[in-house]
Amino acid sequence: MSVKVALLGFGVVGKGTYRSLTQNAAEIERKTGKKIEVKYILERRPEAINSGIAPVELFTQDFDKIVNDPEVKIVAEIIGGKELATSFMLRALKAGKHVVTPNKAVIAADYELFHKTAEENGVCIKYEASVGGAIPVIETIRNSLVANRITKVEGIVNGTTNYILTKMEEDNNSYADALKQAQAKGFAEADPTADVEGIDSANKLSILIAECFGIYIKPTDLDRTGITKLTRDDLRLATQNGCKLKLLASAELMEDGSVKAFVKPTQVPMDNPLSTVRNEFNAIYLHCNMADKILLTGRGAGKDPTGSAMAADIVDLA
Amino acid sequence: MSVKVALLGFGVVGKGTYRSLTQNAAEIERKTGKKIEVKYILERRPEAINSGIAPVELFTQDFDKIVNDPEVKIVAEIIGGKELATSFMLRALKAGKHVVTPNKAVIAADYELFHKTAEENGVCIKYEASVGGAIPVIETIRNSLVANRITKVEGIVNGTTNYILTKMEEDNNSYADALKQAQAKGFAEADPTADVEGIDSANKLSILIAECFGIYIKPTDLDRTGITKLTRDDLRLATQNGCKLKLLASAELMEDGSVKAFVKPTQVPMDNPLSTVRNEFNAIYLHCNMADKILLTGRGAGKDPTGSAMAADIVDLA
Repeated sequence: MSVKVALLGFGVVGKGTYRSLTQNAAEIERKTGKKIEVKYILERRPEAINSGIAPVELFTQDFDKIVNDPEVKIVAEIIGGKELATSFMLRALKAGKHVVTPNKAVIAADYELFHKTAEENGVCIKYEASVGGAIPVIETIRNSLVANRITKVEGIVNGTTNYILTKMEEDNNSYADALKQAQAKGFAEADPTADVEGIDSANKLSILIAECFGIYIKPTDLDRTGITKLTRDDLRLATQNGCKLKLLASAELMEDGSVKAFVKPTQVPMDNPLSTVRNEFNAIYLHCNMADKILLTGRGAGKDPTGSAMAADIVDLA
Repeated sequence: MSVKVALLGFGVVGKGTYRSLTQNAAEIERKTGKKIEVKYILERRPEAINSGIAPVELFTQDFDKIVNDPEVKIVAEIIGGKELATSFMLRALKAGKHVVTPNKAVIAADYELFHKTAEENGVCIKYEASVGGAIPVIETIRNSLVANRITKVEGIVNGTTNYILTKMEEDNNSYADALKQAQAKGFAEADPTADVEGIDSANKLSILIAECFGIYIKPTDLDRTGITKLTRDDLRLATQNGCKLKLLASAELMEDGSVKAFVKPTQVPMDNPLSTVRNEFNAIYLHCNMADKILLTGRGAGKDPTGSAMAADIVDLA
C-alpha cells in the first residue's frame, strides 16, 4: 500500500520534491519498505502543468478536493509566499493531514500556531528544508542530539549573501558587482532584499533557536544587520585580522536561560570552521554539552537539495 | 512510564552513555516525551562500580538476569572486544530486546548476521556511535538522505591517525614522535595497531558501504594501507602538490553496480573539504544525486561524544 501525498505548487522546489520521490523510489523502498505516491499537484500555471515532469492528470486547481480526500495523508506546501501558504497549511493540519514545508518565513512567523494546530489535530508539521536546504540540521537537533543540551548554534544559513561575500573577498569585487554576479548565477533574486538585509537568515535563526533551546523568538525581534553597507575595506580588515567576514546567524543560551542572538556581518576567526564555508554553501555549527561541536555543511538552496530534504520529511511521516 | 535499559559495561563509553541519559533527562523528555531508566549495568570491576557516577544497586554481574527481565527493552553493548560482545548482542536480540552498540569491529564482521537476527526477532540493532562518534552519519544516510542515491562516500573516520598526520604536517614531526604525542594525549592506545594500520577505518568503511549502497563487503576484503610507513617527505610532497595527506576511507558505487573502495593515505586536494579536517576530528563527505554534497564533521571518539550517539539511538528505540 502506498502513502498518498499532495504537492501544493510545482515550481522549482515542487519539481525537486517530485523528482526526489519518483526517481529515487527504489532507494526509498529499499531503505524503508514504503511506497510514496503523489496523488495531486495543486498548480494552475500551464508551463508547470505541461513541463513533462509529472503526468498532467495529477494536476488540479481545487484545494478543497485535496483537503477533503481522506486518502491524502501528507500535504507538501511549496507555493511560497505567506498568506495563502499559511492558510493552506492550517487547513490541511485541521483536516488531519501531516504538513511538510520549506517555507522558513511562514514557519518562523507562526511557529507556535503551527505546532499547536498540529498537536490539536494529532498530526505533525515538518520543515527540514526550511533551514540549510539539504543539510539535515533539524533532524540532527531533534534526534541525533536529543541527549544533549545545545548551548550555542552558529550558522551561515543564507547562500546568496555568502556567495556575495566570497566574491568580494576573493575577487576584490564591490558589493554591487558581487550582487550582480550572484543574480547572474541565479543565487540572488531580482529583488534581493530578503537575503541581503538578513531577513531570510533571521527567519532561519528563529527556527533554530526554537529547535535548539525550546524558546520561540519572533524573527522581527532578533537583532539583524544585512550586508548592503559592506565595502571592500571591511573584507580587507577581516583578512588583516586573520578572519573571514561572514553573515553569521548566532544564538547562545545564557546561564540565566535567556538567549543572546543576532544576524550580522561578523569577523569569523580561522579556527572556527565556519570561516572555511565558501560561495553559496551553508553550514550550521552546533555546540553541545556531550557531543561537543558538530558542523553540518551542504547546499542550502536549489531545486534538488531542497527537494531532497522535503522528500526525507515526507518519507519520515509516511 | 519509563523505558528500561541495560548497559553492558561501564568503561569510558558506558559512563558517557549513562551521563548523556541522566544529565540530559530533562532535554530528552522535553524533546520526545520519553523517560529512559537505566535498570542494570553489567560490570564487575570495583573501580567502575564504585566510581560514584551510577548508584551501586544498578550493578550486576549476571547477564542472564538482564536477558530474562521482560522489563528491559533495550540493551546497550559497551564492553568492547569481539566474542563476548557478539554473544551478548545475539542473545539479547533473540530475547526480543533492541540492541545499541558503538562496536564497529563486531558490526562490520557480522553485519548480515546481526541484521538477520534482529529482523527475525522483530527488534532493531542500532550503531550510530560506531562510525564518526557523535557525528550523525548513519541517521543522515538512512533518514535525511532516504530520497537520494548516494554515489560516493569519503571519510576521515579515525581520529588517532588524523591527529598523527596533522602533527607530522604542521609540526614537521616524524611518525614515531607524532605517535608518541597521540599516545600522551590519550588519542592513541598503547598498542596502536588497529588505528595506524587502517583496520579501524576499514571496519567503519565496511559499515558505511552497507548503509550507503546496501552492499556488504567484509572489512578484511577491503584494500587497506595504514600510515606506519609514511615519512615527513610524504607529507611535504602532498603540501607541494597543494594537497593534505589524509588517511582516507573511500567507497564509490560504479555504473555496473560494483563498489570501488579503499583505506589508504591519500593526497586530498584543497577543494575537497576533508582537507580542512585537522587533529583528532572526523568527517564524512557524502555525494548524493539530489542533495549534492553533504559534509558532517565532529568528534569521532571520546566518552561524551560517543555516549551522546549511544543515547540518541537508545532514545530513538524508546
